[in-house]
Amino acid sequence: MTERGLLIVLSGPSGVGKGTVRKAIFESEGNEFEYSISMTTRKKRIGEIEGVDYFFRTREEFEELIAAGEMLEYAEYVGNYYGTPLSYVQKTLDEGKDVFLEIEVQGAQQVKEKVPDGVFIFLTPPDLVELRSRITGRGTDAPDVIDERMRVAREEIEMMALYDYAVVNDQVPLAVTRIKDIIVSEHFRVERVIGKYRKMLEEL
Amino acid sequence: MTERGLLIVLSGPSGVGKGTVRKAIFESEGNEFEYSISMTTRKKRIGEIEGVDYFFRTREEFEELIAAGEMLEYAEYVGNYYGTPLSYVQKTLDEGKDVFLEIEVQGAQQVKEKVPDGVFIFLTPPDLVELRSRITGRGTDAPDVIDERMRVAREEIEMMALYDYAVVNDQVPLAVTRIKDIIVSEHFRVERVIGKYRKMLEEL
Repeated sequence: MTERGLLIVLSGPSGVGKGTVRKAIFESEGNEFEYSISMTTRKKRIGEIEGVDYFFRTREEFEELIAAGEMLEYAEYVGNYYGTPLSYVQKTLDEGKDVFLEIEVQGAQQVKEKVPDGVFIFLTPPDLVELRSRITGRGTDAPDVIDERMRVAREEIEMMALYDYAVVNDQVPLAVTRIKDIIVSEHFRVERVIGKYRKMLEEL
Repeated sequence: MTERGLLIVLSGPSGVGKGTVRKAIFESEGNEFEYSISMTTRKKRIGEIEGVDYFFRTREEFEELIAAGEMLEYAEYVGNYYGTPLSYVQKTLDEGKDVFLEIEVQGAQQVKEKVPDGVFIFLTPPDLVELRSRITGRGTDAPDVIDERMRVAREEIEMMALYDYAVVNDQVPLAVTRIKDIIVSEHFRVERVIGKYRKMLEEL
């Protein structure tokens, strides 16, 4: 009996450094999870490689996959689609391997609905830790500027509520270690292992 | 505002090696949690030190503390009381420090009722992993022996259901690393940090 792998989702507000942290994780040693490459309709940038950075597809191709129910999640962002093809994720989880996604918050919400037992990690901007000074600034900012900062902070905090973990991206190597520790620890959660033991007993 | 510390509870079936693992954790580096010393009515053994290994008390003293509601948990085991005095745990958690308990399963159940947001770690015997061979043995064991092993295994698995994590004690250093990783990771759980952010926003 192969145990199903864990689905690990890294997300967070745009600009928080999800891509940088994800790259640092996959450049580090001792990872026992596979990276699920995203699909996009945006133009390939110089240096980017098909099937490494992204799967590059036309808008028509992408919309066909959506219609066929073959996207685990997708979102439109600045006029382009970004998403996760379902087939690779399913196959890899079925083989008992963990899959790591780094996606936008809209997409993470879709995954949460489809795979509630995934591990959802929210990357937090470092200055969310110093909310007060970030929002009130130097005390000379206009009330509407402060209000807008309040709104953004409130939005980020409420986004966080959908996740299992919040990791501060204060220093990339620290964020990497925290995320890798979380992934290891999640394998020891009772709800993930007890079924295996119960099944073994029943089968005796 | 000081955040309240985490209550960490290590328990498991008797004979699984809880004490050995706990000692190895506290002999290791980089722990940011305090050990809560248990109280007992059993006789001090040679080499044991009051206030280090245990708080040694008479049966009468122990029962007075129970009656006064000053035990977080206690259990009777082979004719002696073992338990955790409440005052030290409260004080330390209030100071924002994590507290580590290593206790019997009866006691862990009491703590779970009183402090449901603690981190409950179940130490698993290594042979629970090889349930089948452990229970059926070499195929030459009497049916009643096999039945008894089934009963014990079933009991252990159902005990596990009350916990957050199950860690196999196959090798002490591995169990130590797993438990320390779990404690670090638990600090990043959204339900433990989101209240702090919400409160900061409200206070602005």
